[in-house]
Order: sequence, then structure tokens, then C-alpha cells
Amino acid sequence: MLGTMDRQRSLWAWGWRDKFPDDAARAGLVQLARALVPTAQPASRSLPPDEPEVAPARVSVPDPLVTMSSQTSRDRAAHSRGRAFVDLVAGFAGDYGAPPDLIVRPRDPIGVARVLEVCDERGFAVVPFGGGTSVVGGVDAAAARGDHPAVVCLDLSALAGVLEVDTASRLARIGAGTFGPRIEDELATHGLTLRHFPQSFEFSTLGGWLATRAGGHFATGATHIDDLCHSLTMVAPSGTLATHRHPASGAGPEAARLLLGSEGAFGVITEAWMRVVPRPRWRASASVAFRQFEHGVAAARALVQSGLQPANARLLDPNEARLHRVRFDGSAVLLIGFESSDHPMTAWLTRALELARDHGGEVVAGPTEKTDAPEPAVPAGGHDEAPTEAATWRQAFFDAPYLQSALLSIGILSDTFETACTWAQYPELHAKVTAAMQRALDEECGGGIVSCRFTHLYPDGPAPYYTFVGALRIGGEVAQWRALKAAASEALVQAGGTITHHHAVGRTHKPWYERERPPLFGDALTAIKRTFDPRGIMNPGALI
Amino acid sequence: MLGTMDRQRSLWAWGWRDKFPDDAARAGLVQLARALVPTAQPASRSLPPDEPEVAPARVSVPDPLVTMSSQTSRDRAAHSRGRAFVDLVAGFAGDYGAPPDLIVRPRDPIGVARVLEVCDERGFAVVPFGGGTSVVGGVDAAAARGDHPAVVCLDLSALAGVLEVDTASRLARIGAGTFGPRIEDELATHGLTLRHFPQSFEFSTLGGWLATRAGGHFATGATHIDDLCHSLTMVAPSGTLATHRHPASGAGPEAARLLLGSEGAFGVITEAWMRVVPRPRWRASASVAFRQFEHGVAAARALVQSGLQPANARLLDPNEARLHRVRFDGSAVLLIGFESSDHPMTAWLTRALELARDHGGEVVAGPTEKTDAPEPAVPAGGHDEAPTEAATWRQAFFDAPYLQSALLSIGILSDTFETACTWAQYPELHAKVTAAMQRALDEECGGGIVSCRFTHLYPDGPAPYYTFVGALRIGGEVAQWRALKAAASEALVQAGGTITHHHAVGRTHKPWYERERPPLFGDALTAIKRTFDPRGIMNPGALI
Repeated sequence: MLGTMDRQRSLWAWGWRDKFPDDAARAGLVQLARALVPTAQPASRSLPPDEPEVAPARVSVPDPLVTMSSQTSRDRAAHSRGRAFVDLVAGFAGDYGAPPDLIVRPRDPIGVARVLEVCDERGFAVVPFGGGTSVVGGVDAAAARGDHPAVVCLDLSALAGVLEVDTASRLARIGAGTFGPRIEDELATHGLTLRHFPQSFEFSTLGGWLATRAGGHFATGATHIDDLCHSLTMVAPSGTLATHRHPASGAGPEAARLLLGSEGAFGVITEAWMRVVPRPRWRASASVAFRQFEHGVAAARALVQSGLQPANARLLDPNEARLHRVRFDGSAVLLIGFESSDHPMTAWLTRALELARDHGGEVVAGPTEKTDAPEPAVPAGGHDEAPTEAATWRQAFFDAPYLQSALLSIGILSDTFETACTWAQYPELHAKVTAAMQRALDEECGGGIVSCRFTHLYPDGPAPYYTFVGALRIGGEVAQWRALKAAASEALVQAGGTITHHHAVGRTHKPWYERERPPLFGDALTAIKRTFDPRGIMNPGALI
Repeated sequence: MLGTMDRQRSLWAWGWRDKFPDDAARAGLVQLARALVPTAQPASRSLPPDEPEVAPARVSVPDPLVTMSSQTSRDRAAHSRGRAFVDLVAGFAGDYGAPPDLIVRPRDPIGVARVLEVCDERGFAVVPFGGGTSVVGGVDAAAARGDHPAVVCLDLSALAGVLEVDTASRLARIGAGTFGPRIEDELATHGLTLRHFPQSFEFSTLGGWLATRAGGHFATGATHIDDLCHSLTMVAPSGTLATHRHPASGAGPEAARLLLGSEGAFGVITEAWMRVVPRPRWRASASVAFRQFEHGVAAARALVQSGLQPANARLLDPNEARLHRVRFDGSAVLLIGFESSDHPMTAWLTRALELARDHGGEVVAGPTEKTDAPEPAVPAGGHDEAPTEAATWRQAFFDAPYLQSALLSIGILSDTFETACTWAQYPELHAKVTAAMQRALDEECGGGIVSCRFTHLYPDGPAPYYTFVGALRIGGEVAQWRALKAAASEALVQAGGTITHHHAVGRTHKPWYERERPPLFGDALTAIKRTFDPRGIMNPGALI
């Protein structure tokens, strides 16, 4: 149903249905969880049915959309929401809320325009749908419902594929509905890669990444998908907008930057010209341990301010290193990686390790440089690499959302949030956030763990990413999660961090986003939305 | 009057009045011009008076603005326009058009808000004024006049200085009215630099750079001032907007990016937190000659696509190398420079030169690496470096606007325009642009020269910068220039280039900008302007 493969996505958990752990594996997880969260009493809960029950659609399919619409129960349930913790809780309860009344799958941008025209005439709300992996309520048919007579889920999966490649300019025109693995597979035939690997990579699409300003592979430099976007096309109820194709311009405010992060509230991104690169041939990497997290922070700052531009530079605090099975001795770890399609990177890595040592780091793996080594494993990529700490971390990274679903099924709450702040703000922000989360975990879960890693680094500040784990209160999961999320968000905003570095705003972050967003800029966004979407049918309630 | 020094800016030419060449120097220039443009008959023309005659102001100073206003003839003439070629023509004719009725110099952002409030009440047009160096009619009191009862020039020079420095995060809060040399002088006391050196550096301000998306020092990576901006504050008739302070965010469309390039049409930028860096300690550089320009183009592409990130990478075509006195043998030259405050750059330069040689380049100067060498000369910087080809080029770069004024005074037309396009588009764009300009120069000037250099490089394309020189038709200068400018702009837009890479839109580029800008994005900008500036008093006619 979702994507193009026969293998089925789980209706109620992250990812492929067949990857959800069986009873034996869950029993093992129960043991692990007991060690991890001593206050919890984990136990395997029964799983929800795979055949959903949903209320009848409120409208029949409008004639002009007959050839592209579906109203099956499974389709409607599968498109009802994203993959935030509360979505998983609802999924495990077999509750599909108020699912969309119909799913439409236009085959080209003209079809998208036709859908918007029909919905605009009828006042139907439209929820654009890429891979449905939003963790912030960006895809939520029930919330978009309002007074609209129907909610239409616009599934972009048919607008897929690498449509055109300009090798001289290293650009590829890609359909918005293309999932991560297909982008990489098709670019690989040209020796190219987009090198954008969000945690949702396997189940999310280019259009979703662009609409939510997803964070990608590179730890420094081109971190957000924004930086990889050369131009894009959006279809809105008012018409179609294709941004000018240039590598850079000084002609007025940059149009693409207004559409990046618009979260379906302005229109539907249908395709984009993306900046691609040759597959790297050289990869130099090392892991550095720090007895004190603060020293690792200082080393990370020195590294990003050095101008060396590592492709990877993840700092894991001791809890994070333990959770991700990278290191168990209470030290923090900085994973450093350089890559190039043009030249060996040893000189770069050597200087990076000097900086790390200057801050008390001890090199615990590497340095190694590989030439023409196979690509490290990414989901559906099929390649393997030697089991280094970085590889362990990478596998854990892509498995984390599966683990979240599995933990939920044994009564353990786990979730993440992220921000970005200046280096000057970070120590206080970190202290406040961890204190607030520990307090909230104590109150809501009778204790728990909070950990921090840096996912991306900037000369002016880090992007800290927090994970928290605690015991679930069966029946009270949503209230528990809301209290924890509010504690996190409140602490972030009060300490001056942004409410999200790359998870987007959706509906979950909106109250805090509205405090971060200057009111006059909010007025401008409202004016823009009115221009693109005069009747307010586009993803109502998200972002604006 | 302008700036804070006693030395006076020329009313009618570029830069300092005392730097305008005397009669003997102009006689020498006549000889040079004869050799350069054989079809011209250059001759020293008489210079305009330094005491301007301007029509009386149409309004008296409103009471609330008395303490910050001026209506002197000199002040009004000096703020009447920018430094486009047509502005110079008018200046040489002693024509100050319809100058602003008053000049206001608020001392702080509250003063700016007060000015906008008073002007909004009265329907006075407001022209924000940094250094008045716009080459695209962005500062033009006569054009802003329309039906407004008065035109107020809002001079930001009192909002000046480096106000705060966060060394950990490498950020500095800087007043929008701060001129380039003062920014560098004050940051130097912290061992820091903004490293943004547009050609107008000495006479332009941070606010002007931000409002026009100026192009700066770095040839790759952070090329536009946009990339150096951490957050900014704008005062608009509707209120004040301070963008959130974060190194990066995924929370909705980026607010700062909507204000960058707004050219005074939304409001007045009053200050910004800017990303600064330590002064470089290592500088590695070399010059490479290519017998064929196309080979230099291929080398430039390989260099920017290599990931080496040179700070400088300027390709000069044979005419450009000759005009800038860098090389006279008909070869093209690629000037390559790496710099770092952290580590030697020889490894980087070595690989860059391998790439250049792979494309037929011959290293004609360097490679050299200097450690802790004095900063190369920039205006008002006072440092010197050995007379290398790069240094020769650099001096010629900052002197070029003086030369333009001097050439105009002996009957020679010279001007520049710039664009950016993909590598795939470039060969055709270059052929069309040079053909169109040669034809236009033949028709309008009886012949002339057109040259090209790359000022900035991106993995997806270059930013070509064109210079053209021909004989002026005394009395017909404006018509001549308009025909040449139209030929250039038409060729750029037809070949798919952007109408400007870093000179901004102003009023000069507007007809072509409106073709480049998607209509729906134009509607959005209009809606935003209405939100920020409901009565349309902000720089009327610019950009929107």
C-alpha cells in the first residue's frame, strides 16, 4: 500500500511489519529494559490487529478524482497519522481516530493541481503525505478536520524517481514522492548520491524532507536538506510556483527558502532539482573518548570552528554512548569522519585528532582511512562495513525508531527531541534541560534516563539531541508523554534554544514555535498562506 | 557628512573627493584609454562643482524629528542617489534630480521606529541609506517620490559599531550603519574579522550588505553576507522583528532569509548578530595560467566540486587579466587562495594545483604559504603585501570604481554586471552574453571590450562577472548605457542566468527580475510588504 514494494508497512508501529520483534525477541527486550530502567516493570503487551476498523468516509469520491482515489479501510488507517509517540500509542490501541475520507494518488503535477482545484471548490482539507513519518503531528487527518466537510490525504508516492541528471552541474531533478532508498539506487547508476540520510530515510520522501527542513548526513556545512536544494516546484491552490534555477542569487529574498519548511501549509512540493555528489572514494575516521563530557563539547567546538568541515562529528554523552552500545565506561565519545570523492582525507583527520587530544581526548578507534571501501550500511543499501564503533552507532541510529515501537509494546516510554543554540548558551541550556527532564521523568515515570548527543555542529553552536526513557503508565501514556514533552519544550525555549533543529513544527511544537517566532513574521506567514491558499485548505492547523 | 571622518566623499564621483585623479593623472588616463579603446577619442571633460544646487525642500522638518534632521543642500544632494553609471552621469552634470526633502539620522532603533511612525502618519516615503553605493538604483530619492508629499532619507550612520562580542560562539552584534573599515577595526581588537570585502567595502555598511545580499570575500562556501548572518533586527512601519538567535533551525521557513534581500522595501535593518572568525594565520596561494579560457573554466569547476573549499578562486579571462594588469599574454588566469586560522593549507593547495594542471594549467606564481603574514591590503586597512599577481589584482579590484568615475570624466563608458548559472548553462550563456554585448558596443559605442571573470564558484555553477568598456557619446550617455544594460540583461535572462548574483535588484534590474521571479512568489512578496508596510512608504518602487 505504502511505497511500491509488496512488503507491508506496519499500521501501528515504525517501519516494516515483519521487522517488528517477535515474542521471543520482546522477552529479551524486557530483560534489557529492566537493566536500563530499574524503576520500570516491563512486560510484553498484546499487539493490535493488523486489520483496522475505521469509521465510514463522510463523502464519496468526487468524479474528477475517481481514477486516483482509494477509500479502503487499510489505506485510510495507514494515512491517518504520522509516527510521533502519541501516534504509536493510538496505533497500539487500534485507534485510527478520524482518518482521511479519501486517499488520492495523482500521477503528475497536473494531477496534483487537479486535486487541489477539486478540494478548493468543495472546501475539503488536504493533508500532503510523503512517507507519513512525521514525529510532530505534521500528518494528522483528525487534527486537520476542523469544519471541513472532508479530509483528503494527498499521497505523493506516484511522483517518484530521478527524472533528470545534469552531471556537469551535479544536479538531479527528483520527484517529491521518491523514498530515500530509491533516490540512492537511481543516483547510484550515475555514480552519484544525494547523501541525505535522516533516521527516517527508508520510509520518508524527498518532498517530506523539503517541506520539513530535514536534517541529513553532514554534521557540518550542508546539514539541512535546504542546503542541497537547487530549486523546487510547489503546486498551491492559487497556482504553481517553480523557483528560478540558479546556484546562487542576490535578486530579492530567496524564493526557495520561503517554501522550505512550509510543512504543507502553503502547497504541495512536487519535485526539486537537488545538489548531488559523486560517491565518496576516501573515508577517514576515528573515535575519541573523553572522561568528561564538557571536554568533548570543547573539542567539538574546536573541530567545527577549525574549518576542517568533517562529514561526521557526533558527540555522544556517556548515557548516549551506553544506549547506542558504543562505549560502556562512562566516557563521552566523539565520532569523527571525513570523506571525499577527490582526495585522501588523512591530513584533515590528523589535524582533527590533534584538536581532540588538545582537549583531553583519547583516540579509541582508528584513525583509519579507506579507499574505495563499500558504502557503510544504510537501510535497503545492503552494504556492510567492518563492525567499528561508528558502524555500531550507525546501525543503532537507523534501528532506533524500531526500538521505540518495541519498547512501547513492553511498557517503556522512549522519545527524542532536539534543538540548536549558541556555544555560549549551551552549558546552561544543557543543565536546565537535563534537570527539567530528570524531574519530569521522576514525576511522571518514577525515574528514567536522559541522554544527549550532538547531531550537527555549527561554528556558532551545536545541535544537541536528547533521548529520554522511562516507565509507561498503561492507560496514561498520552498524558505522561505530554507532560514530558512540555517539560522539554519549556526548558528549551526558556534557555534560548530553537524548538526544533530538524524534526519540524507540525502541531506538537506549535505552542512553543509561536513563542520563538517573531509575531510580525507570523503575520507575514499568515499573509503568504492567504496568498497561496486563500480558503485555508492546506494542512489546516500545521505550522500556521 | 557621510561616515564619521572629516575627509569628504565626492558628491559626483566614487569615493573620496581627494582620490579623484588630478588633471595630469587624467591626461595619462587618456593615453591609456586610447590604447584600450581604439575607437574612442578620450579627452578630459570639465568637472562639476562641489557645491550643489538643489531645489528647496517641499516640507519643513516635522517637530518630532527636529533633533535628528538635516536639510542642508550638501546633505540632500549627497543622499539623492547611489553610484550606478547613470548616477555618475547625473553627478557629472551637476544634476541632483529631486533630492530627499530631509535627511534623518536616528541614534538608535527606537529613533528609527519614531521616524517610521512620523513618516507613516504623513505618508512620507522613506529611503533607507547606508553608504549610498547602490549600483542598481536602490537608493533613488527621485524614483521613490511618486505621489508622496515628501521623501525622507533615513541615514543609519549613527547606528554604528561592534556592540557585543561572543567569542565562544564567534558572533558579534553590529550596528547596521557600521561601515566596512570600522567593522574590521573594532573586530580586530578581539582578534576577529567578518571577512566580508565587497568592492564597496570602504563606503558601504553592514545594513546595506544585508538588505542587498552582498557578495563577499569567500569564493566558495559562505559567499553571500546571508551565510554570515546569525540573526537580525528589522524595524518596519508595523513593528519590530528580531529573528530568533540560533545557529540553525528547522522550525518553519527561516525568518532571516525573508528579510535578507528585502532592499528597504519591508523595513529598516537596525542591527545583526554576525558570524565572525579569527584572523587567518596561514595563507597558501598560487596563480595558474591557461592558454584557453575553457580549460580554466573546467579547472574552476573541478576545484569547486573537489570539496577543497578555497577562500579565493577567481578565474579571469584574457581581457580581464589584461584590464586588471595581471597578465598580458592572452592567457586566462585562475587565482587560488586558501586560508586558515587553525592549520597550514599547503595540502589543500597542492591538490588544487594538481586539479588545475590536469586541466592544462601552468602555475605561474607560487605556490607559497605564509604564516602570520600581515593581512593583504584592503582600503583603510593599511597593510601591505608583496606585489604578487593576486595583490595586483586585489588593488585593481578596490580601485575599479574610482577608475569608472575617472574614465567617465574622459569620455569612456565602463560598467559591470554579474549573474550565476549552472555549469551546463554557462558555455551558451557566455557565448550569448559576449555576442550580445559586443553587438551592443558596436552599435552604441562604435566598438568596445567585454571581459569576464568568475567571482564566486558553486558546485552547481559559477558566478560570472562581466565588464564592458566603450566610447561615450557626450549628451547621449544615459541612452547609450540603457541600451547596453538592456542588451546584457536580456541576454542573461534568455540564457537562464539570474539577473544579479550580488548587485541586488533596485530599480534598474526590476523589469528582468520580474521575469525571473515566479508570479506567485511576487504575490507573496506583495502580501508581506503589505503586512510590514501597509501604506507603502518603504523605499517605494524598489524590488516590489
